[in-house]
Amino acid sequence: MGINAMRIGIVAAGSPFDPDIADRVKALAASLFPGNPPELIVHPNSFLRHGHFAGPDRARTEAFLDIANDPGIDALWFARGGYGACRVAEAALAGLEPAARNKVYLGYSDAGVMLAALYREGYRVAHGPMCQDIVRDGGEAAIARALRWLVDKDPTALEPSLDGATPAAAFNMITLSQILGTPLQPDFANHVIMIEEISEYLYKIDRTMYHITANPGIRKAAGIRLGRCSDMIQNDTDFGMTAEEIVHHWCERSGIPFLGSADIGHDAANRIVPFGI
Amino acid sequence: MGINAMRIGIVAAGSPFDPDIADRVKALAASLFPGNPPELIVHPNSFLRHGHFAGPDRARTEAFLDIANDPGIDALWFARGGYGACRVAEAALAGLEPAARNKVYLGYSDAGVMLAALYREGYRVAHGPMCQDIVRDGGEAAIARALRWLVDKDPTALEPSLDGATPAAAFNMITLSQILGTPLQPDFANHVIMIEEISEYLYKIDRTMYHITANPGIRKAAGIRLGRCSDMIQNDTDFGMTAEEIVHHWCERSGIPFLGSADIGHDAANRIVPFGI
Repeated sequence: MGINAMRIGIVAAGSPFDPDIADRVKALAASLFPGNPPELIVHPNSFLRHGHFAGPDRARTEAFLDIANDPGIDALWFARGGYGACRVAEAALAGLEPAARNKVYLGYSDAGVMLAALYREGYRVAHGPMCQDIVRDGGEAAIARALRWLVDKDPTALEPSLDGATPAAAFNMITLSQILGTPLQPDFANHVIMIEEISEYLYKIDRTMYHITANPGIRKAAGIRLGRCSDMIQNDTDFGMTAEEIVHHWCERSGIPFLGSADIGHDAANRIVPFGI
Repeated sequence: MGINAMRIGIVAAGSPFDPDIADRVKALAASLFPGNPPELIVHPNSFLRHGHFAGPDRARTEAFLDIANDPGIDALWFARGGYGACRVAEAALAGLEPAARNKVYLGYSDAGVMLAALYREGYRVAHGPMCQDIVRDGGEAAIARALRWLVDKDPTALEPSLDGATPAAAFNMITLSQILGTPLQPDFANHVIMIEEISEYLYKIDRTMYHITANPGIRKAAGIRLGRCSDMIQNDTDFGMTAEEIVHHWCERSGIPFLGSADIGHDAANRIVPFGI
């Protein structure tokens, strides 16, 4: 490791991470920053397997807090999504110490629950690629984007509609839906909210958009942008509207401005959205 | 029709109903109440087909209001679930006239959105079988139960844990989840809430139970009872908990009493739960 290299802690808050994938990410990081690569510290609990999860709730909470509360670590990078962050978010938040404020938290999908919980309490969070994305087609580009943003604050990594003046937030649709009306829901007043989805029925997208746009807190947003909705599942009955038409419909009905597309999604092109301004 | 026979209006608020199934339900009603069968009036819009829905939102809203506001009709029976009630609930509610108070509304699944919206405004609603249930194995029993309750208030149709003193409500889990934090959410203070689910991944049951039990309004409930969770979808990774263990877990974490099982579900045995006392 180089002198004063950035130190990035990696934590799986939901499904288990894989040591081979961790090694691929570390090798890529070394090649991207010759001379002074960031140090990637994968919390060992991330490799635990407990049913669906990277270890029991307590082990994932502990992993998160070990990294978040370490004053020698500059960023907490979620290893992957899957499912399980909602089981640890409240306990994780309750265990945070002052050192947790001096870092940025990066992830998306299921990890969006952690982003919401942290953002609500004033921590610096961003929606963007996670380690597991390296296995996607062209996934190295996603990892490189995440690392260049974490290490160098590379502005080309950012979602292009961000104007630096309007606060933003980004979520997987169903992840956002499932924190609404809970103590984890952040204040979205005047925010541009970007949403994306993967592997879902269009009728469920429609139902989820009802839920999202009916929420009084979401109605205070500056507007909604739609990222990519990929691998939609075909139903017996054609839904009759595209995902974009659905989002446009619910924005119009609820009076929330529909602001167009967002360059985010469950894919290698997923750009970074820091929450807030 | 007999003298002073009960008149039951049938409406599809979500997916389209089928004329052949309507005829089967009418024939069964005639055979169950020889001499004085209830008159079943299926709103013709229920047979419309508009993509996923029984006609466009406006046609379904109109069908609901035609029946609900008809002073000569004693009950509004939802034809079936599927998906689409959340698209009409607010407009339907806004169009209700005084005659809508003199009847009972019966349905479940997606129609639970309508039950929530109506109950919130003080209308008489109940969770129980719908016309479409006649196609299930043994489905005639569900239709007979619904009709005997609508026509004769047959007490054996009721969910057996109802004590007549504690207010109750019942929902499909995801339907309940998707009204939380919206203007359709009723006041659940001191209610026993019964929930059921069908054809879902256990990890989604877990996520939905997080969402439900984290809601401050739900935390005011007297407790939760679990109906049947049928046809759960197998994931690549075994979730490691049954649906009952999941519900028990989230009740314990959230401090909501878990009260045991409820005799409701997406099946022919589905018993009736009138909302409130």
